[in-house]
Amino acid sequence: MAGRGTMAAWVAVDWGTTHLRAWAMDDRDAVLAEARSDDGMAALRPDQFEPALLALIEPWLGPGTTPVIACGMVGSRQGWAEAPYRAVPCQARSDRLVHAPVRDARLDVRLIPGVKQDSPADVIRGEETQIAGYLSQAPDFDGVLCLPGTHSKWVHVSAGEIVSFRTFMTGELFDLLGHQSVLRHSIAPEGWDDGAFAEAVAEAMAKPEALAARFFALRAEALLRGQSPEAARARLSGLLIGAEMAAAKPYWLGQQVAMVGAPALMAIYTAALAAQGVTASQASGPEMTRAGLIAAHTNLSAVP
Amino acid sequence: MAGRGTMAAWVAVDWGTTHLRAWAMDDRDAVLAEARSDDGMAALRPDQFEPALLALIEPWLGPGTTPVIACGMVGSRQGWAEAPYRAVPCQARSDRLVHAPVRDARLDVRLIPGVKQDSPADVIRGEETQIAGYLSQAPDFDGVLCLPGTHSKWVHVSAGEIVSFRTFMTGELFDLLGHQSVLRHSIAPEGWDDGAFAEAVAEAMAKPEALAARFFALRAEALLRGQSPEAARARLSGLLIGAEMAAAKPYWLGQQVAMVGAPALMAIYTAALAAQGVTASQASGPEMTRAGLIAAHTNLSAVP
Repeated sequence: MAGRGTMAAWVAVDWGTTHLRAWAMDDRDAVLAEARSDDGMAALRPDQFEPALLALIEPWLGPGTTPVIACGMVGSRQGWAEAPYRAVPCQARSDRLVHAPVRDARLDVRLIPGVKQDSPADVIRGEETQIAGYLSQAPDFDGVLCLPGTHSKWVHVSAGEIVSFRTFMTGELFDLLGHQSVLRHSIAPEGWDDGAFAEAVAEAMAKPEALAARFFALRAEALLRGQSPEAARARLSGLLIGAEMAAAKPYWLGQQVAMVGAPALMAIYTAALAAQGVTASQASGPEMTRAGLIAAHTNLSAVP
Repeated sequence: MAGRGTMAAWVAVDWGTTHLRAWAMDDRDAVLAEARSDDGMAALRPDQFEPALLALIEPWLGPGTTPVIACGMVGSRQGWAEAPYRAVPCQARSDRLVHAPVRDARLDVRLIPGVKQDSPADVIRGEETQIAGYLSQAPDFDGVLCLPGTHSKWVHVSAGEIVSFRTFMTGELFDLLGHQSVLRHSIAPEGWDDGAFAEAVAEAMAKPEALAARFFALRAEALLRGQSPEAARARLSGLLIGAEMAAAKPYWLGQQVAMVGAPALMAIYTAALAAQGVTASQASGPEMTRAGLIAAHTNLSAVP
């Protein structure tokens, strides 16, 4: 929670489906305090967003108006207010923030819009801020950003613009198959096996169409060969990431690749890319989110 | 429930993960009565199988011993007793039934073993009885059986033997993605669109590696293009079945294909196969299960 007496020049907010995270920022964009709760978008009706935010950041508010910049699902149709998607190609740094309705005059809340692509149909809501954050620190970057996660994104970036992107349900499939399917009997909740992972990536890249059969084979291998639940977990991850890499090949082949995400997930994606001769740099997801919120706030101050 | 006074010559039982179904049979293998309950294998400890069975079939038992033949997950390691897998290639009709331990002397319970394949690792538990049932009615069949379901099976059958097979988690993926994933917001619980299905099958067959991206596109198409939840449901099914067909191509290409399953599921698989120029016959899953149980009982009587 925030310390007593912290007063924010502005507040940066990352508001996703299942989490809410806020930073009290000073006028030089340094972090004064941080707070978080489980009041994700999915749990809130439109009129519950303002109280959920105040519960977290009220200690940071001064007597005047404090700007709040928020990204993520808070700006979706089911969120606090809809911040309509911008269409690619578009500047990574957003300039069309949308005001959220507030009752408390101390709040001035603006939501960062997502990004859409018509063909193939695809959407980004939240990661656009990480992309803008990355480019605020590497303005000359030209290449591909890989953002592994629940819905992994591969994003082609050039001249400060998001050119095209593709989303894969890799992380969500991993969770569903590992926890909800018949495979849960054969897959450990934790644990890893580098060799099993690398082998599965290679198999899936070579024959990605066999995915649904290879999934079931994880069960059969446990029954018939006593394959360890840790190796099975690594194999499931490898099959999914291998299939993703096969489909995302136009994104990473011969490209400069930078990864933005959680350290553990970046490590396994980096290993999978390295096996294809691709070296990817790594940047922290939460840090890039904050950098993107700072970039949006700076933009706002420059063009009032 | 069974009528009063029905006395069975023997009892046929289909006992899966989530269901228990029993038929009272006369000495000419005609069905006298049928009963079912939700006492599936997953809900029972080993010592609860006998009471669950008696609750259903006790009205059919005479003073002597009544043979009971059961197939399905009841014979798995977590079931009543383990009926170890037979390895392919093997006769479709099983001759290695395993006795389940009973306290009630009126019961003589035998479990049909599953079938395993070492490479690629795969298992069958329950469908082997449908295969045996099909072959008891078409003893000269040489070709491929397709058994669509939660875990769809493609089975190469020749000279009364199961030669090889492959299992796809198609049905389970459809349920998980349609009900548990982010796609649940975009997918109707019922409803269909033939055109959307056919298009998705063709897309997945052409580029099966893009599956995880095409899944997410269902969400994006709903958000950006207002795609109907019924069309999205048919598309999800088409993507999964198309990928399955791409991987199962060695099974159906240039082969005689017979389908065994539920009518609605057989209809959509038949449509997907027809688009590839393959005509498949159809046989009812429950009827083939009963035919397979009858074949096992006949076999038992012939070789006591």
